[in-house]
Parts: sequence; C-alpha cells; structure tokens
Amino acid sequence: MAAVQSAPQVNGHGTYGKNVTEALLKEEDKERSSVEKLSKEHDITLKTIRLLIADLCSQYKAGHPGGAMGMAAIGVALWKYAMRYSPTQADWFNRDRFVLSNGHACLFQYCFLHFAGYPAFDFDMLKTYHSEKPESLCPGHPEIEAEGIEVTTGPLGQGITNAVGLAMATKHLAAQYNRDGFEVVNNHTWCMIGDACPQEGIGQEAISLAGHWKLNNLTVIYDNNQITCDGSVDMTNSEDINARFRAAKWDVIDVYDGCFNVDGIVEALKKAKQSRDKPTLVNVRTIIGVGSAVAGQAVAHGVPFKADDVEQMKKAYGFDPSQTFIIPEIVRNFFSDLPSKGRQHVKEWDELVASYSRAHPKIAAEFQSRREGNLPSDWESLIPSSFPNEATASRKSSGLTFQPIADKHNQFMIGTADLSPSVNLLYPSKVAFQNPHLETTCGINGTYAGRYIHYGVREHAMAAISNGLAAYNPGTIIPITSSFFMFYLYAAPAVRMGALQKLQVIHVATHDSIGMGEDGPTHQPIELAALFRAMPELLYIRPGDSEEVAGAWSVAIKHRHGPTIISCSRHALKQYPGKTDRSSVAKGAYVLEESDGKPDVTMIGVGAELSFAVDVAEELETKGFKTRVVSFPCMRLFEQQSVEYKRGVLKRNEAPAVVIEPYAALGWERYADAGVNMKTFGHSLTNEYVYKHFGYEVGSMAERVEGFLQARKRGEILQGEYADL
Amino acid sequence: MAAVQSAPQVNGHGTYGKNVTEALLKEEDKERSSVEKLSKEHDITLKTIRLLIADLCSQYKAGHPGGAMGMAAIGVALWKYAMRYSPTQADWFNRDRFVLSNGHACLFQYCFLHFAGYPAFDFDMLKTYHSEKPESLCPGHPEIEAEGIEVTTGPLGQGITNAVGLAMATKHLAAQYNRDGFEVVNNHTWCMIGDACPQEGIGQEAISLAGHWKLNNLTVIYDNNQITCDGSVDMTNSEDINARFRAAKWDVIDVYDGCFNVDGIVEALKKAKQSRDKPTLVNVRTIIGVGSAVAGQAVAHGVPFKADDVEQMKKAYGFDPSQTFIIPEIVRNFFSDLPSKGRQHVKEWDELVASYSRAHPKIAAEFQSRREGNLPSDWESLIPSSFPNEATASRKSSGLTFQPIADKHNQFMIGTADLSPSVNLLYPSKVAFQNPHLETTCGINGTYAGRYIHYGVREHAMAAISNGLAAYNPGTIIPITSSFFMFYLYAAPAVRMGALQKLQVIHVATHDSIGMGEDGPTHQPIELAALFRAMPELLYIRPGDSEEVAGAWSVAIKHRHGPTIISCSRHALKQYPGKTDRSSVAKGAYVLEESDGKPDVTMIGVGAELSFAVDVAEELETKGFKTRVVSFPCMRLFEQQSVEYKRGVLKRNEAPAVVIEPYAALGWERYADAGVNMKTFGHSLTNEYVYKHFGYEVGSMAERVEGFLQARKRGEILQGEYADL
Repeated sequence: MAAVQSAPQVNGHGTYGKNVTEALLKEEDKERSSVEKLSKEHDITLKTIRLLIADLCSQYKAGHPGGAMGMAAIGVALWKYAMRYSPTQADWFNRDRFVLSNGHACLFQYCFLHFAGYPAFDFDMLKTYHSEKPESLCPGHPEIEAEGIEVTTGPLGQGITNAVGLAMATKHLAAQYNRDGFEVVNNHTWCMIGDACPQEGIGQEAISLAGHWKLNNLTVIYDNNQITCDGSVDMTNSEDINARFRAAKWDVIDVYDGCFNVDGIVEALKKAKQSRDKPTLVNVRTIIGVGSAVAGQAVAHGVPFKADDVEQMKKAYGFDPSQTFIIPEIVRNFFSDLPSKGRQHVKEWDELVASYSRAHPKIAAEFQSRREGNLPSDWESLIPSSFPNEATASRKSSGLTFQPIADKHNQFMIGTADLSPSVNLLYPSKVAFQNPHLETTCGINGTYAGRYIHYGVREHAMAAISNGLAAYNPGTIIPITSSFFMFYLYAAPAVRMGALQKLQVIHVATHDSIGMGEDGPTHQPIELAALFRAMPELLYIRPGDSEEVAGAWSVAIKHRHGPTIISCSRHALKQYPGKTDRSSVAKGAYVLEESDGKPDVTMIGVGAELSFAVDVAEELETKGFKTRVVSFPCMRLFEQQSVEYKRGVLKRNEAPAVVIEPYAALGWERYADAGVNMKTFGHSLTNEYVYKHFGYEVGSMAERVEGFLQARKRGEILQGEYADL
Repeated sequence: MAAVQSAPQVNGHGTYGKNVTEALLKEEDKERSSVEKLSKEHDITLKTIRLLIADLCSQYKAGHPGGAMGMAAIGVALWKYAMRYSPTQADWFNRDRFVLSNGHACLFQYCFLHFAGYPAFDFDMLKTYHSEKPESLCPGHPEIEAEGIEVTTGPLGQGITNAVGLAMATKHLAAQYNRDGFEVVNNHTWCMIGDACPQEGIGQEAISLAGHWKLNNLTVIYDNNQITCDGSVDMTNSEDINARFRAAKWDVIDVYDGCFNVDGIVEALKKAKQSRDKPTLVNVRTIIGVGSAVAGQAVAHGVPFKADDVEQMKKAYGFDPSQTFIIPEIVRNFFSDLPSKGRQHVKEWDELVASYSRAHPKIAAEFQSRREGNLPSDWESLIPSSFPNEATASRKSSGLTFQPIADKHNQFMIGTADLSPSVNLLYPSKVAFQNPHLETTCGINGTYAGRYIHYGVREHAMAAISNGLAAYNPGTIIPITSSFFMFYLYAAPAVRMGALQKLQVIHVATHDSIGMGEDGPTHQPIELAALFRAMPELLYIRPGDSEEVAGAWSVAIKHRHGPTIISCSRHALKQYPGKTDRSSVAKGAYVLEESDGKPDVTMIGVGAELSFAVDVAEELETKGFKTRVVSFPCMRLFEQQSVEYKRGVLKRNEAPAVVIEPYAALGWERYADAGVNMKTFGHSLTNEYVYKHFGYEVGSMAERVEGFLQARKRGEILQGEYADL
C-alpha cells in the first residue's frame, strides 16, 4: 500500500449526484434480477444511513459525522451479511463480537443496531444522541451497558486490544469445551479501527500479540480514510501499514472504493473469516464525510455539517431536503430479516448445546456453570487458613493464597507482563496460553486451553486484553494481571476502562513502596496510589501481612463488578498472627490494637509498612503514650462502611491519627491528622537503606509523632490542618 | 531476520576458554600488526569488562549482570570508536548523545564511562553500585544527574523515545543555526535497546515518528539476545522485527556474533551514521550472560552469578579467580586516548564556533543565548495585560496568552497529539517540524526549523519525546505538549519521567472536568488530577479565568526545573477582572473575596468551576451567611508558601472551608472541611446537563453547604472529618 493515497473523486462514484431515490421506489415492484435489486438496495441504504447520521449530528449541533458516514458500506457488510448474532437475544453466548475501536464514530454502531432490530435502539433512542437525556443509550462513545455494545470504547487503541481479548476468550473456551462434532464456542470477533488506533502504542502491542497467538478468529477492519483531526495522516505517518501488520504475522486484504463496494467488503470479510492461522486486517479505503461538501477533509471528523451542506446532500441523493430522518421502506425491508435470522442462529446453537449436554454431560455442566458466571463453591476454602509466622514478602503470600485456587479452577486466566519470576503466580499445573503449534527456544510451550498468559513487556495491552477477556461474558473468565506496581501506570488507561465498565479483573501489583529498593526512583511508586484510590469502582488494596493478603484475594474474587489491585511488597514483612484479620480487610480498615485507656494517638499502618505503625506505637508506649493501631488496607472499602463503624475505628474525637505510608499523602488527610509520607521521588538504595534515607526508622518516626502531639497540645496546629511529619 | 534464532554456541567463539590473558600480557611488547594487536586488545578488554560486571553484581548480591555482559563489544565499538564526546567536558554542547533504553543494564554504561575517563566515574564510584551509599552515581538505573548520562531510563520504551527527541533537537537546532561552512550542531544520537523496548507500545510510537521524520542522525542498536525475564522472546513475539522497522521507513543493518565482533559492530555503526535519509536499526545478535554458566538463559538477566560460576569464568579467561576487580594495564591503555581525543573534539568545535561568531555575529549571539538556556527578556510582556470580559474557554485564554510568545520566540517547540483544532496553540507564524522534502496531501508541510510538532495520536511518545527535547541541553528548547487532559493518562509514565528528571516541559491539557460534556465518561477526568497533584516536582495548575491562565503560563515558563500541566476548560468560563490575579497564581491559592465581618464559610473555587464557588457564596450571602471565596489553582505551589500565608488564605480557625471541584476529593481534605466532589465516573451529556446531572447547580450546592454548616454547628461532624456534599 502506498503510504499516501490521492483523495478519490467523491462525485465520480456510482449513481451519486443523480436523483435516484424516487426512481428506485417506483421501480420497487418491477421484475429485476436479484443482483440489480441488491445493488439498488445498497445504494439507497447507504444514502439513507449517511443522511441519517448527518441529521443526527445536526439536531444538537454536535457529534462526529464524517467517519461514521464513510463507514456505512462496511456496516452493511457486517450487520447484513458477515456477522452472526441475534438482535433480540443480544447476550447470546456464541454471538460474534463487534468492537468499534474508533469509538467517536459511535453513530455508525447505533444506526446499525437500530436497523438490525435491537429493541433498545428504537428510533426515539437514536435521536437521543447528544441530547440532554441522561438515560440515552447513544452517548458520545459506545458504552457497554447497551445491548449490542460489547465494550465501552473511546480512548483510542483500547478497542482493538479488547478485541484481542475477546478473540482469545473464544479460542480458550473452544479449547476447553468444544468436543468432536460439538463446536459450542466458535464465534468470530470483528473490530473496526480508524487511522488513530494503530498510531497509539497500545495498538501495536495488540497487533503483535494477536499475530503471535495466531488469532485467526479476529478480523480487524481498517477504516482507512487517511484523515485525523490535524489533517491528512501523511503528516504524521509514513508507515507501510500493511507491511507492519504482515511483519507481525497478520494476513492483509485490501479493499478499494470502500464507501460503495459492499460486495467487495463482504467478500473480504468472508475470506478473512476463513483464515486458517492468522488474524486478518481488512484495509478498506474510505472517504471521511463522503457525499458532503467537506468530504475527505479533517473538518468532517468532529464537526456537524452546515445546514446547506445537508440540504445539498439530500437533494443530490434525491431525498426531500425539507425533511429529516427519512427512512425509505426499502431500507427497512432490506434489514427486516435480521431478527428472525438471529433467532434461527440461537435456536440451532441451543439444539447443539442440548445434544452436547447429552453426549458430554459432565463437561457440559461445567460449561453451563461457566456461562452463568458462577464462582466454584470451594474457592475460599482453598486459601490457607494460616500462614508461616516468619517474615514473608506479601508477593509470596499472594502466591500462597492464590496458587491453590488457580491450580484447581478453570475460570482464572493469569497473565504477566514478563515478570513471572517476581510476581509468584506460577501455579503447579500451569500451562501457557499459546498456539499449540508454537515451539519456543526455552521450551515453555502451551495450548489455547492454557490459562497462563505471557504478555511480554506489554503492561498496557495486558490490562486491555484482560478487559476483553472479562467482557466476553460476565464472570466466565476472571482475568488476573501482574507486574510491578509502578508499571501499572503504563496500564492505567486500560485499568480505568475496566473500572468504568465494572469488569472483574484482578491486578496483582508487586514491588509496591520505596521498600522495593535498589531499582530506584523509576520503579518506586510515590504518586500512583493516589490515582488508583481516586479511581471510581476500583479497589486498591495494600495488605499488611499474609493474613491480610488472604483477605485481599477474597475481596477481589468477590468483587464481581469491578477491578481490584492487590498491592504487594517485594520484601519480607513481619506477620501478625491473631492480630491481623482477613475478614476485616473487606471493611477497608480495622483496629489492630486498642489502647489501654484513653488514647493519645492512633497510628495507622498500611500494607508493607504496617509494622512501622506497630513499632512506632510500641516505642511511644515506652515513652508513656497510650496508643492504638489501625490497619488500613483499602480506602474505598472503608468509605463504604457506616459512619458508626468508621468513627469507631478512627476515634478521632478521642485522639489524633497519624498514618505511616511512604507515598504522597493525598487521600490520607481524610482519615489522619498527620502523616509520615513522601514529598519527593524515591532513591536507589537497598530496602533497609532506602527506608533509612527517607526517615522511616522507628526511633525517628516516634520522635516526630511525639513532637506532633506536643505541638498539637500547644495549639500550634489548627483544626483541620494535616501535619507532614 | 528469522523471528527465532538458535542460541549460538558460547564456547565456540574466538579464543574463549583458553588461558589467553597471561599470554597476551607477555606478548605485549612484541612486534605485531595493528590488526592483530587490536584483536587481542579487544579480547582482553571484553573479558575484563564482563568479569568486572560479574564482580560488581557479586558485591551486594544484587544487580542485572547478563545484558550488560552481552553488550560489552557494543560498548567498545561505541565509546572507543563510534561516538564523539569528551569525557572531561561531559556537557559539551555538540557531543553525541547516548541513551541506554534498556536501563537495567546500567552497569554497561557505568563501566564504559569509567573506562572512557569520566572523572565522576572513578573506580570507587563504580563499586557503589547497589551499595548503601545514597550519593552513589551508580544507581539501579542510569540517572540524569551523573555526567555522561543524558536521560534517566528504566521504564522500558522511554529511552528510545527520548532518543528520538534528542535527535530531533539536533535536526531542529542545525536547521535554525547552521550556516554554510559552519555546522555548529551536527551531533549524532545513539540508543541501545533490548528486546523489551520494541514490545512496549511507546516504542512503536517512537519508531513510527523517527521514520516519518527521517531522523538519519539517530542510530538504535538492538541488543538482540532474545531473552526476557520470562524466558525466550519467541514465547511472546513472532514479529519480524527488521521488517517492522523497515515498514516504518528505517534502514536495518544486521550484525551477527555481536558479543565478539567489535570490528563488525564498528563498521555497522559507521554505516548507520552515514545514512542519508533514514534512522538506522543495528540489529546485533548477542548472548545474555555470555561466558557464564547461565549464558543465554533468562536467569542471567536480573540475578548475580553464583560464586563458583564467576570463579570458573575467571579461570576460563585466564584471570586469577582469587581476585576481584582485575583490570589489566593493557585495558587501561586501550582506553587511555579517549580524554585527549575528546578535548580535541571540543577544541575544534570551539574554534568553529568562534569563526561562526565572526561570520554571523547576530545568529551566533542567539545561538549562544540558547545554549545558555536564557529566556528571552521580553516574554512576559508579550502576555496580554488584560482579556475580553466575556465568557471565554480557558483553552482559548491559553491561546491568547501563549501564542504571542510562541510566535516570536524560537525556544518553544509546540506539539500536539492530533488536537490542533481543539487546543489553540496554532500561533500565526507556525511552521511544522517536518522533513523538508515531505509533501502532505492536506498541504501542511514544514521544515526541520519548524517548531510545531504534529505527533499524530501518540500522547505517550509526545511526552517522552518532549523529555528528550528538554534534555538535549538545559533550557535550550522548552517543549510544549497538548491534548485533552484525560489523555495525559496515556502520557503519564513519560510525564513522570520528566518530573523525576526535573525537565522543563509544559503540558497544555484542555477539556478538563466533566464540563467537557458529551464525549462522556471515557473523556471526563475524575481521578487524574489526584495523580498529578501527588506527583513530585510537577505543577498541576487549573486556572479559573483568562487572568489566571496568564498567571499559569508565567509560572510554567519560570518553572525551569520541572514540568507543568496547565489544565484548561473546553467550555466558556465567566471572567473576574479586578478580582482574579495572575501574580497570585504563583502562590497556588489566594483570597478572591473577603467576607464582611467574621466569616461563616470559605468557598474554595478551582479552575473551570471557580464561578460555582463565587455563585454559591453569593447565594449564601442572600441567605444571611458571611462568605469568603478562595481561588485555588495549584496545590503544590500553595504548599510551598509560608504557614502564615496559608493560614491567612484558608482561615480555617475562623470558618470551615468548602471546595467545589467535580474530581475525586483526594488532596482537598488537606485544605477543606467539605467538598462537592465526584465519587463516580462522569456521564455523556452536554456541558449544562452534565453539571446538572451531578448536582452542580448553584441553588442545590448552596443548600448542601448550608446543610453542612448546620450539621457542623449541631456537632454532627467530628473534628477532622471531611464531609462529601
């Protein structure tokens, strides 16, 4: 493919510009060949959809019309011909998945969901696009809550990566559950991308992994209009994009004239679906805002057309320019078979599953339970009831807790961004998720039934793919990711998308805190916890010892509608058997040690530094202070408790609270009156010395807390002021 | 290139395994051909460096030995032969830049800086690697503070992207300042990558842009050892990496036997430097941990060798196994010419600049001022002294403020991740930074002297490249980036690296707050401010009107040792002429309206929602409350003020403070007693309705504040508790 294409002549195509609509309607009853009929149906359908998109953006003078209009023919090819789905049974398990990675073109999807007959997308609903109605299912980007929308998209590059996860889910479940003659899982994943998704780094991570895993059940359709907001793509891109996909072991099919050539697109999609061992890129040349006065221009991307432009388009298309939202009967008829076709797909599949259940009752029962998203009944009993009372890194405790569950139960797919030796998730029966024909140099091979995912050094894709795995069907797969905590900043946009979509993904983040040591400030999180504590729906949990790690995993597995980060230490932590309490982790914070009489101070301990709070409290006791200790693994869980519980834990009307955590203080000011926190980046020193360097020595901390209590007594600290110790 | 290579036979190479060292030393004075001599010098040098690395990791039983050892021959090729630099004048302006993108292999760089004669890297300093010494210049990853280190690296993919920025800086300054016969800027940029950097998405963004801009002054050397932590790279990668670089318009040169073939590497580097219009990848096949018992294995990556392995290596190499840190005289001699060679480079360049100054005094004076990192004297006077008193989006105010400066002054390089129409940084004389031979379809061409950078949809690379531009020479280039605020989450790992390195980069983030409207929750930041407010060294500023935008830009331009985010609204904001104050922005917060008598409440207004605080205060006044209003654009700047100033602004001993900001509350609990903040993600609704949806209506907010004040009076809120209104 040439990197730059000359812009096609819009008016040179087909019958556009001629007043054909009326003629078409009049000819409707005449005898014609089906080919001719089809072609005319396509013609009027495309025009109708383009004008509908223009009208929908004109309503509130806002929206993204151009891309959606240019993609109309692709939509016809997908929803009318290529995809297998059932509009009236939108959550059919074996449906094809469609992802709109260029989510700003959402009108494309809404319109086709409407025409295909998804009940929620009736005409009134379509018209809520950019309206003042909060209940609209047509927001500015597609959102997972609506039927027919598999994942929420918008931030570019996320959708294509989710699509890789969706395709993996199919491969994996097929390998686990299909039996000879019973292909109960064999759906295809289709994903639209624009020019931006392959520019975003995460796009390349997705491309690379899909090629590596030979996901032949994934077809990515590239709306190649060569326009982004700033102008033509050749301003920022000189890549041979087909060569890039081929280098990553994809098949590439070119389609020209992609605004009009429905048949050509259908043929390409059909060929793509037949790919034997590669994912396929269908590179479709389109024109942004086709048919409008700004066709092929950047301004067609995110700005509604001018009124006279829409009028001219309607005239040229033979539509009545005084009317809006015109949908000719022929267009309705064209799509009218889709609901019944869909019901037939589901019926056949139901029958297949029924005979599968008779032939393979045991595996079929498991398959059904997985479809229902049930957790195995015994998972919690597999967690050790106690742990060795010796200093243990919480990343090790995490392995002790979760490995028995991972080992036994199929629904957990465990991934790592190249840190297997560090994150301790290698369960005994581990088999890697790999194409079964792959033979690696190091001898670690796998199958599609394998549940351990080696992502390479691709944190962002790991999290976004996990969103796709989780979104395949609620609860069927619970994806686990793992890396150093600091590198979840690379993954953060995808972690956010998981939270926004309330997807259950469990992120195991090790090497949290400056205590991770000599790797230094590039690897030591200071500010990152503030992000994840602020992120809605997400649970960020820092367990303080093995017992709390057990509690954190329980919370994470029970948190079915949102992601969790379990934040673990690299270094060994003191254990508090009989004091720490796994079940209390679910409350976010709890009293570890109550004071003997009226307290002078409550010490709040968190995660890897819990022992610091305990030790400082002990030191203060020797100096005559009455101290309490609170363990505080999770702010969000604590916020969910009753006022009474919260006040009972913190007792701030009895004594000030001081938190010890070598992160930025943000968030702790809500719960504490003072803190030993970090105001700078970390330092490359081994564990012991890095703590020392930043003043996290018990004696020094106790002195500072004492100084604070005295200053407070002297009235030097005003009400509400947080003291940085 | 085959995706997978069979592991080379370590013992089959050269003279390894024979006891050659002693023989070498004995032969030292004999007559030999220079080729023979060189070869033997290389041999002993490589052995010495490998053993030195092994010994340095054995000292504290920590470190990353394998990669550094495998790269020894590359290091010899670079520091002895290919690079132009001066060890005793490490900050020489026209020096070649070297970036170690695989930063964990830092011993590689430290060792060669030592041998090349950088004074700071004496032998005692080398031995501080992973020691308890906080003043060590040999931390776990290279840090910019040390001489010879151009950028701090570690998080993978950052370094290669910084290198693109460094190479752009050369191209740009050469285009601005070189004159016929006076190539005063012509340095080359060299960058080492491992197997991980091209896996990280940001790596592809960098590769794509470097190829697009035809940065022929950039050479990336790939330490292709096909090993990462999890095992062989073919577990996670099936790409043809050479084809991928070629698809992005790079030249590729293969080198085999890269642990030994110094001459081959030198030849490849020489050829790469001569590339006329493409960046070059030198793909060097190496063996991780070469010579050790774990050569070619993942365990060689991040774990020191066993004692007996080091002993065996020493024996095999003919070194005394009972000694550590052996550096034969021949090795010292081999590198001994580098300091004087470097001084000669600088001398010649100084002479060139002297004659340039005579021939082109005016441009030479500017060049010198740029080298000194001076700001132009008149920049602040170019900011409008007042702004139209009509509702203005702060993204527009930002343009009004900065465009006159950008228009006139060379040191600002302004970039956008494909949002030029939205971020308002297009100054009148704008010329794009582009290869001068590029002709784009949309007609927006440019030159290397151009200062407006179209990054495409690559936020992460934009920020990391800007770090490279800023790191080229302190203050010579002040890079500006721009995108929607939400997408700085994609860029966050690079924004962090800029903060860690105290690099002046100004990020213009528009569409902050839910007020950005119909693009919906994927685009509405809720939790992101918490990250950037918690990030050390960074200033996150939310100006409330045009006057405060002027103040924010002044702060950002004066903040020479760290990044700033100027956070702007998409929508029009009320102006407060005579009330808001640009100079007070530097204090982080200030009193906008004082109360008439003892106050009942202080309303804190922030950025796009400043007017909400003013309006709520007014409403409360009509209900008989005495109110104060504080404008609070920047937490970090406020923290830097005196206790007296802070108390004078907040007056929390006189009245409670209530903040209005539709972000997560984190951080505000330090300054306020209650807040109207967000606990959920946003919603796709137009500006007016999204505020309404989340209760940001003046009447409703005023009622809630009133309710809070009453509850507080009734003692229902305990000291230190933050009330979510």
